[in-house]
Amino acid sequence: MDRKEMTQRIILPEPTLRRLPWYLSYVSMLRWNGVEYVSSTQISKELSVDASQIAKDLSFLNIKGKTRIGYEVASLERGLQDFLGFLKKHNAVIVGTGSLGAALMADSGLHNYGLNIVAGFDINPTVIGTTISGVPVFHVDRLEEMRVRLKAEIGIVTVPVENAQAVADYMVAAGIKAIWNFTPFRLKVPEGIVTQNTSIYAHLAVMYNRLGSQMTVKK
Amino acid sequence: MDRKEMTQRIILPEPTLRRLPWYLSYVSMLRWNGVEYVSSTQISKELSVDASQIAKDLSFLNIKGKTRIGYEVASLERGLQDFLGFLKKHNAVIVGTGSLGAALMADSGLHNYGLNIVAGFDINPTVIGTTISGVPVFHVDRLEEMRVRLKAEIGIVTVPVENAQAVADYMVAAGIKAIWNFTPFRLKVPEGIVTQNTSIYAHLAVMYNRLGSQMTVKK
Repeated sequence: MDRKEMTQRIILPEPTLRRLPWYLSYVSMLRWNGVEYVSSTQISKELSVDASQIAKDLSFLNIKGKTRIGYEVASLERGLQDFLGFLKKHNAVIVGTGSLGAALMADSGLHNYGLNIVAGFDINPTVIGTTISGVPVFHVDRLEEMRVRLKAEIGIVTVPVENAQAVADYMVAAGIKAIWNFTPFRLKVPEGIVTQNTSIYAHLAVMYNRLGSQMTVKK
Repeated sequence: MDRKEMTQRIILPEPTLRRLPWYLSYVSMLRWNGVEYVSSTQISKELSVDASQIAKDLSFLNIKGKTRIGYEVASLERGLQDFLGFLKKHNAVIVGTGSLGAALMADSGLHNYGLNIVAGFDINPTVIGTTISGVPVFHVDRLEEMRVRLKAEIGIVTVPVENAQAVADYMVAAGIKAIWNFTPFRLKVPEGIVTQNTSIYAHLAVMYNRLGSQMTVKK
């Protein structure tokens, strides 16, 4: 195992993992605009993150900036994509192929970030046996069998909130190691199972409240 | 203006606004399972939120629990939906009708949470003049005109990361008051403009890292 591979085994603090994609998106924009070098001071100013924090975060990548010149934009972009796992395929299954589930299956953008949705699961007989955006849909009873066959470790939960916990339990029993929860339900999972919550509706609630547009109440 | 309407003008702390949807999803599940009453202690245990915090959060809603019985589940669910603005229509426009944008336009689930996407905008001539999931797509030059006509205050950003800031600036100039950013780019907006970041890719990065599956590196 070379040095680079060792580095990537490190379990990073979550705040660092959340900041690295910001740096990535910023350097992608710079590269797109033909910029060749960027300093941590410049990144700091643009993203309102302390420059020493940026240097510390980037030190995990084994990428060094040059004195007075800074980081080479193209290498930094590639290094971040690589380090964040976006250049590798990660197989995932999705349970709940309704509106949001089908939307995620159709979102080829996820592919660019390394997510490969290999199968969908549902209990609705009208979708079982069909494909959605080229992804086959199975009865949820076949989750474990197909998960093993397709080597998927990530499970995406896009079912109604009432079924979220039951589906998460079922995923864990089927050998899923990471659950990406799109419902607002706070899932309980055994230790060692990774969960990430993408709380779309909480974001809506914040916007509505800040806009003050829920003044009049529909009964 | 009655007491209830006044309450809803309150600008709530963001952590409270993020917790209220958890309570909502939990009571929705309870109602679905035929449960009639729930105590803050029970909610606390299920969601790992301090019971006094829950009582404080719910006090904003003007909903009182009964001693020893707790909150009536159906009223609490309705009260939360109402308070969070999910029962009212909020018009939104979306800029970037590619993969993720089109997915959100197709996601009827957002409707259930009060989001009404009324128009899409793009620069791609092959989509301009078409409809996606029944939503018309216009050239981005017509953003201000259509935003005013359709009374939309929310702008959803689903463009490539390189264009995210330019689109946000353009939205603000067109009178958008709240920006829902699906790109990993950290947008800069003037004071008074609400932004919410749904950082899908940061969540992927955390999962990949925790899974340790980026050990081997594809060059």
